[in-house]
Amino acid sequence: MTKETDWQVRDPDFEARVQRSFDAQPLMDFIGARLVLVSAGACVIELPFRAELAQHDGFFHGGIIGTLADNAGGFAAFTLMPADAGVLTVEYKVNLMAPAMGDRLVAEGQVVRAGRNLIVARADVFVETRAARIHCATMQQTLMTMHGKGVA
Amino acid sequence: MTKETDWQVRDPDFEARVQRSFDAQPLMDFIGARLVLVSAGACVIELPFRAELAQHDGFFHGGIIGTLADNAGGFAAFTLMPADAGVLTVEYKVNLMAPAMGDRLVAEGQVVRAGRNLIVARADVFVETRAARIHCATMQQTLMTMHGKGVA
Amino acid sequence: MTKETDWQVRDPDFEARVQRSFDAQPLMDFIGARLVLVSAGACVIELPFRAELAQHDGFFHGGIIGTLADNAGGFAAFTLMPADAGVLTVEYKVNLMAPAMGDRLVAEGQVVRAGRNLIVARADVFVETRAARIHCATMQQTLMTMHGKGVA
Amino acid sequence: MTKETDWQVRDPDFEARVQRSFDAQPLMDFIGARLVLVSAGACVIELPFRAELAQHDGFFHGGIIGTLADNAGGFAAFTLMPADAGVLTVEYKVNLMAPAMGDRLVAEGQVVRAGRNLIVARADVFVETRAARIHCATMQQTLMTMHGKGVA
Repeated sequence: MTKETDWQVRDPDFEARVQRSFDAQPLMDFIGARLVLVSAGACVIELPFRAELAQHDGFFHGGIIGTLADNAGGFAAFTLMPADAGVLTVEYKVNLMAPAMGDRLVAEGQVVRAGRNLIVARADVFVETRAARIHCATMQQTLMTMHGKGVA
Repeated sequence: MTKETDWQVRDPDFEARVQRSFDAQPLMDFIGARLVLVSAGACVIELPFRAELAQHDGFFHGGIIGTLADNAGGFAAFTLMPADAGVLTVEYKVNLMAPAMGDRLVAEGQVVRAGRNLIVARADVFVETRAARIHCATMQQTLMTMHGKGVA
Repeated sequence: MTKETDWQVRDPDFEARVQRSFDAQPLMDFIGARLVLVSAGACVIELPFRAELAQHDGFFHGGIIGTLADNAGGFAAFTLMPADAGVLTVEYKVNLMAPAMGDRLVAEGQVVRAGRNLIVARADVFVETRAARIHCATMQQTLMTMHGKGVA
Repeated sequence: MTKETDWQVRDPDFEARVQRSFDAQPLMDFIGARLVLVSAGACVIELPFRAELAQHDGFFHGGIIGTLADNAGGFAAFTLMPADAGVLTVEYKVNLMAPAMGDRLVAEGQVVRAGRNLIVARADVFVETRAARIHCATMQQTLMTMHGKGVA
């Protein structure tokens, strides 16, 4: 994942803040997702395959791919927000580019541009097996900084 | 939900075909979603609230909203496909318009235009309580007919 | 075009305000577009065909279709804004569903949901000849109300 | 612009083919756009500012930004297609991230993934002055290869 630019961090403790917010989402635990990397303007989330997450062919369901991409982009944006802010997904658009058949999904989110209120992020999702890594989805997303609305 | 036009059905048995395809998706059972209406060019899916499906505020997670919308639009498209075809989501874009706090999500999918290979659909998602019904999300989507690739 | 709901108007003089804003966009005059309807939460724009607006097959170019849809949705949103506000397109997503070959494009924009700061709109674009009216594109869009930033 | 991967070229004469297709679009000449770079999986288009292309603030209109992005992504995809194929934009989604005020727009399109029938591309649009280069828009797009439908 290329860092496209340098980002200005407003809360030096952003890593712990992102981890707390991730841990506060019951859905991440329910599907078995794990936060594997947090840096300024970027976030990587991993999800091992489980039969419950499949569509009818036994591949990861497109909705799960979108969920992971949404969170990877959202937390990438959240790294750049002030300590007292909350993050809101305004919208996301995801292209499913290849069958997501494999052992694990990896969603790599990164900020594209950060304004005071709106942040644009993207995420690329890869499906991995022991032998291969396929770029199975790409997402573009708009997020909003909710000033003063962060979780205490 | 307004039916925007009349659709040409290629498989008179489309209702049973959609139900079988829905039942073959482990994810729908895992999250507790239920197919409540199938008609030519349209599909409605319902999902009762469960704590596991929440984001950090206790509302339905945006990824779950996208999942439901993706499936409602996808099955709406599937109703118009030939008996031997499979359906593939090419991409979807969802706007999250209001906090999805309530007892139940209802995703109403409908076809906008059906070509031979590509179908455009939309879905509107509502969150319902005993007292209110809020239009919490709207989605636009592209699907592909996979001729001869249906599940036997 | 169906009015999906009743809208709360904050500026009773919205029609004149939308017309002034439309007239202030040199691009609309350059391509020959005309505002044909403005009502609360809705806007219709028309564009006669000219050879200069074509792609390589002699149809309306997809970028022109997107331009018209962007403006129809944007002005639909603008009808609901306070008198002193400006409107900003955050993003739009357009599906090109049929070749736009004809005498005239008609873009019908309507608001889907209006929040205090963000508005979601859609637009449907039709290409018309003497004999037919084809639904050639559909758009989903996010707009922002710029409070106090309107043109005097 | 980063080349994300190596691409397989099916028509060694793709540069001339892209230039011919660009020249065959009257809209590009009408707005004054120029093809400045074509390579396998990538394309750059430039557009000098003219007052006719503005919205009400005198910046480049969002529809023009979308038009340029659509074409940059579309021609990037076209570089990878067989000699006898045509290219069709299925849909595009563009985020307008900063006011496009400047002397020139530069749209850099690149392929993200190329399948046999569908290609996913993105484009980044920059607005340039003598003093600065601002990343003003980003686009994600789906294209279709129309086998055997190319212009002779």
